[in-house]
Amino acid sequence: MIVILEQGISDHNLENVIKHLEDYGFIVNKSVGEERVILGAIGVQPNFDTRKIKILEGVKDVFRITEPFKLASRSYKKENTVIKIKDVEIGGKEINVIAGPCSVESEEQIFNIAQIVNKSGVKILRGGAFKPRSSPYAFQGLGEEGLKYLRKAADHFGMLVITEVLENSMIDLVYKYTDIFQIGARNMQNYSLLKELGSVKKPIMLKRGFSATVEDWLMSAEYILANGNSEVFLCERGIRTFETYTRNTFDISSIPVVHKKSHLPVFADPSHATGLRDKVLPMARAAVAAGADGIMVEVHYDPEKALSDGPQALLPDQFAEMMRQIKLIAEIIGRYIH
Amino acid sequence: MIVILEQGISDHNLENVIKHLEDYGFIVNKSVGEERVILGAIGVQPNFDTRKIKILEGVKDVFRITEPFKLASRSYKKENTVIKIKDVEIGGKEINVIAGPCSVESEEQIFNIAQIVNKSGVKILRGGAFKPRSSPYAFQGLGEEGLKYLRKAADHFGMLVITEVLENSMIDLVYKYTDIFQIGARNMQNYSLLKELGSVKKPIMLKRGFSATVEDWLMSAEYILANGNSEVFLCERGIRTFETYTRNTFDISSIPVVHKKSHLPVFADPSHATGLRDKVLPMARAAVAAGADGIMVEVHYDPEKALSDGPQALLPDQFAEMMRQIKLIAEIIGRYIH
Amino acid sequence: MIVILEQGISDHNLENVIKHLEDYGFIVNKSVGEERVILGAIGVQPNFDTRKIKILEGVKDVFRITEPFKLASRSYKKENTVIKIKDVEIGGKEINVIAGPCSVESEEQIFNIAQIVNKSGVKILRGGAFKPRSSPYAFQGLGEEGLKYLRKAADHFGMLVITEVLENSMIDLVYKYTDIFQIGARNMQNYSLLKELGSVKKPIMLKRGFSATVEDWLMSAEYILANGNSEVFLCERGIRTFETYTRNTFDISSIPVVHKKSHLPVFADPSHATGLRDKVLPMARAAVAAGADGIMVEVHYDPEKALSDGPQALLPDQFAEMMRQIKLIAEIIGRYIH
Amino acid sequence: MIVILEQGISDHNLENVIKHLEDYGFIVNKSVGEERVILGAIGVQPNFDTRKIKILEGVKDVFRITEPFKLASRSYKKENTVIKIKDVEIGGKEINVIAGPCSVESEEQIFNIAQIVNKSGVKILRGGAFKPRSSPYAFQGLGEEGLKYLRKAADHFGMLVITEVLENSMIDLVYKYTDIFQIGARNMQNYSLLKELGSVKKPIMLKRGFSATVEDWLMSAEYILANGNSEVFLCERGIRTFETYTRNTFDISSIPVVHKKSHLPVFADPSHATGLRDKVLPMARAAVAAGADGIMVEVHYDPEKALSDGPQALLPDQFAEMMRQIKLIAEIIGRYIH
Repeated sequence: MIVILEQGISDHNLENVIKHLEDYGFIVNKSVGEERVILGAIGVQPNFDTRKIKILEGVKDVFRITEPFKLASRSYKKENTVIKIKDVEIGGKEINVIAGPCSVESEEQIFNIAQIVNKSGVKILRGGAFKPRSSPYAFQGLGEEGLKYLRKAADHFGMLVITEVLENSMIDLVYKYTDIFQIGARNMQNYSLLKELGSVKKPIMLKRGFSATVEDWLMSAEYILANGNSEVFLCERGIRTFETYTRNTFDISSIPVVHKKSHLPVFADPSHATGLRDKVLPMARAAVAAGADGIMVEVHYDPEKALSDGPQALLPDQFAEMMRQIKLIAEIIGRYIH
Repeated sequence: MIVILEQGISDHNLENVIKHLEDYGFIVNKSVGEERVILGAIGVQPNFDTRKIKILEGVKDVFRITEPFKLASRSYKKENTVIKIKDVEIGGKEINVIAGPCSVESEEQIFNIAQIVNKSGVKILRGGAFKPRSSPYAFQGLGEEGLKYLRKAADHFGMLVITEVLENSMIDLVYKYTDIFQIGARNMQNYSLLKELGSVKKPIMLKRGFSATVEDWLMSAEYILANGNSEVFLCERGIRTFETYTRNTFDISSIPVVHKKSHLPVFADPSHATGLRDKVLPMARAAVAAGADGIMVEVHYDPEKALSDGPQALLPDQFAEMMRQIKLIAEIIGRYIH
Repeated sequence: MIVILEQGISDHNLENVIKHLEDYGFIVNKSVGEERVILGAIGVQPNFDTRKIKILEGVKDVFRITEPFKLASRSYKKENTVIKIKDVEIGGKEINVIAGPCSVESEEQIFNIAQIVNKSGVKILRGGAFKPRSSPYAFQGLGEEGLKYLRKAADHFGMLVITEVLENSMIDLVYKYTDIFQIGARNMQNYSLLKELGSVKKPIMLKRGFSATVEDWLMSAEYILANGNSEVFLCERGIRTFETYTRNTFDISSIPVVHKKSHLPVFADPSHATGLRDKVLPMARAAVAAGADGIMVEVHYDPEKALSDGPQALLPDQFAEMMRQIKLIAEIIGRYIH
Repeated sequence: MIVILEQGISDHNLENVIKHLEDYGFIVNKSVGEERVILGAIGVQPNFDTRKIKILEGVKDVFRITEPFKLASRSYKKENTVIKIKDVEIGGKEINVIAGPCSVESEEQIFNIAQIVNKSGVKILRGGAFKPRSSPYAFQGLGEEGLKYLRKAADHFGMLVITEVLENSMIDLVYKYTDIFQIGARNMQNYSLLKELGSVKKPIMLKRGFSATVEDWLMSAEYILANGNSEVFLCERGIRTFETYTRNTFDISSIPVVHKKSHLPVFADPSHATGLRDKVLPMARAAVAAGADGIMVEVHYDPEKALSDGPQALLPDQFAEMMRQIKLIAEIIGRYIH
């Protein structure tokens, strides 16, 4: 931590700042320039609230020199994290596509959609059984029944399952059916959930909260990592801005930013990022072109009848076309999609 | 719901739109103007996803004419909600002040602070026992021990208790000690928690998520109301914008906006909205001047040693001065603070 | 315009609303449903301030059914606008690349860079002669001298020139040297400038303001179109959000959004959108994959010495590699780059 | 400027960073800690682009220790700036109210409104003669005729005039009629205009751009100050966020923030900040309670007929009531309104 002092700080105030730093456990290194004094405060306190120093008399500014996260950072682990689940590798040279309906609606529906997406090579099937809906009057998911259908469909086609877990008390139930836990955007800062999933022995996909900075997002990943689970990957799904035409603003530059600051794989979800079916194909292409390690899209054969988010689901033909195009883009940047 | 059709829509497409609306359960009312056809779709479906119609061929735009929330709306209930807890009334002519430390740190600490704030007339004591911290390495609260101290201190000074509940499994525990449940900003869209608190028989203070619109916020209140608990009040605590000097941007106009759209009381939390002690006093004055039904502030006699958020806590003298000033402002607008 | 009335509006208030609409020149069409009355107000007033009706007693909501822009809209002109300048076509099947330094710094510098970018097939040379800098102490550009060097370099390599014009009094001067006028983000709502450029006989590239919605942006294009100049194309360059790691947030979904709402070509500027050299290549690929009609990038052979924005300029090798990659991506979506 | 180096930076890279800093004119001060090396770079370059160092090999982060503005900063000038214009003092103990219509519409209209606001003690009359409208089809103001009426009305009632100037070529014209130049939000970064107004001998009110940070805003003030005009005051008028119910989000905490970082007076404009008449009164109270040095509001006796922004104009009675209330609030914080 670097503490910049005001020009002409009194000796009394200077000593007071140093004393505070030492009391907080820092080793202080004083550097006297011609214009002003600067203090270097050394000591690993990734969570130190810098405002504690900022409010002292005579302090002009305080800067952190270490990121507030550690295990999630690229400086802690130089090589990319690669997560292996059965025959699937996440974060390697292959770009993975996760596809399926927003919600599992029936056994027939999930089998139909699993077949459609599997035909294009998809190895990970998505589907919600417990839905976090902004209206209390909206469809809230089939619950455990939905999980059963999802597992059955995935097994039938030799696919992995990813599904969302909404709260701590559901972890055991979901564990029985899923291969990957999804943490939704609204739960990105549900720290109880993050902590408990830190001790679970299955990979976690952590979606970005729609008002989270990349730093916040990596701090939430840190919660999981710090509690023992190192198999975490991220998923960008749009942030909230003043633009209203799209549901969210797809922050595509977060993909190279995460790759620079962290070793964790990062996916993109163009369905939620835009909320509009006709924007999904161009945004999926863009995500792959930007270097995403995978994408997650919603697919439905009858989206007008879908019980949730039908308007952003791709039709089967659109999905097949998307797969065709992104496979070609992947090759241009030295990666591949099966 | 109003459906605006494209100029020159074909008969086939027009019939298709009408058929869809009818299939979704709406009664359709066609209005043929000189330039274009407009459909009125009647039927109470507050949660209908308008994108389902927007994506049909020939549709230009779709507007909702009812708000997506009902029980929380001013049109559902014209008079202000007033919540009575023992001798305290929330949402009436009196403006309530909630004060206390960010976290309960020890029995001595909470007694000290309770005494300080009680002396200025405060009837509701705040204090966190379970803290949602963005860093996994930060102080996470004293847990049940903290709740006990908080209750004891409040009882000693004849005050009410408000404290935050982080997840469903904690509700029973917190229930034993608190008079009011606080739902924090990060849990504003934790729908499981909202639902379960809907069946609890104690009032709820629902903080605004830092990226929630007023509509989202009222939708979350709707969750609690729809599950049976009508004693809900709101608390504005700043939203996230591009401005970085303050921790958040205090959206003060949300106070009159909530009063127009809803019958629920609305408080303001200038400590979290700004994150800086020297901004709390002017923002507390502004909140009262803007018509807030109450304010919530953090107070600490030794903020430099506080285990969380010390830099935004008022010192005892500053707090007393704040109380003095806001009492005078309350009178100007025909309200009062004891 | 659709006017939704409150349930149970009094006859007096209803008549008052109708009278107001008629006074404002609308033809009113009353539609009485079971629950409420809805008024359709017909009459072309694209600039009508709907708040005038919203504030009347008994009005619940008001919706515009026509966009506030007309000439810029896709419904006004179905086919894409294609702008021809000598042998260059903007908005056609070819994707154009505009490249060059941020600022023209010397004759040698602009010749060097023109040669580098021309070698990769670039036909439009950029370079600033008048720089809008946020600091009054920063390099403000070479002025007319810069324009001369820019023109000379472009002519030497058979390229077109694009350069920014900052204010009305500079239009004549810039006109002498440029083929395309650039309106920068900070001037997107400088209406005097927009109006005057509307009567100029050269194409205009209109950058998006960093806090403009797509609608605002198209309204600004409307200003130019309405004043007689139909050769307008747009350029997305990032919007301001709470994310701080990148200089701006590249709103990539604005590309398909503009294509849906308007017939005008839309470019992307990944250099300004991210502000960081190592993000330019992935974002340029993403822009092309998303369907941009062109991209604009900054290139410098010695960016450390550049007088402005060196940190976001591509090095010559990086630029050549970018061109190689985006040519391949263009083909995948049925377009091409020379 | 502080340069934080990566742990284990090579000697070659370290030398390279130091060489760059020296080449850019800094005096470098090396501080070797146990964990890492930190460089202090001394030299007054308020406009230095820190990204130039950030992109060098081995650099972890770069922090500026001086603000990018100088003349506008509180550290440059400790005491508040007070601007005297005839018998009016801006930035002193008195809180000034600027009032009048959005646009001057006729001689009768401006006389009427001047009389209304003058009766409540207002000494500065506002009114637009050249209007920056987002639609090219909207009323653009009466031009010089409007300026004449405005001056005449102000003189008749012994008031000062403030009016907006849109571009450099209008400065001379506006100068003849106004006492204070207003720079509107959309022109906050029109640097040509800022520069030229820097050499004008009349005070300037600089509105905050709706996507400007406080730092950006003070940088724009710096432009005027650096060009020789020290009579600048600021006006907060709302920023753009994701909230859509209000036209903008009134960033009320910018008032104490500006007071901390700068010596310049700061006003608030609750009419533009909210865009809704019924929010103006509570927001005006809040602004005064927050410490604003003045407020600016729109008033109209017949807002339904107003040619611009009628829906946010206060009616005469509402205005008188606002004046009554804010006078009382001013006293509570030791200030006064005549």
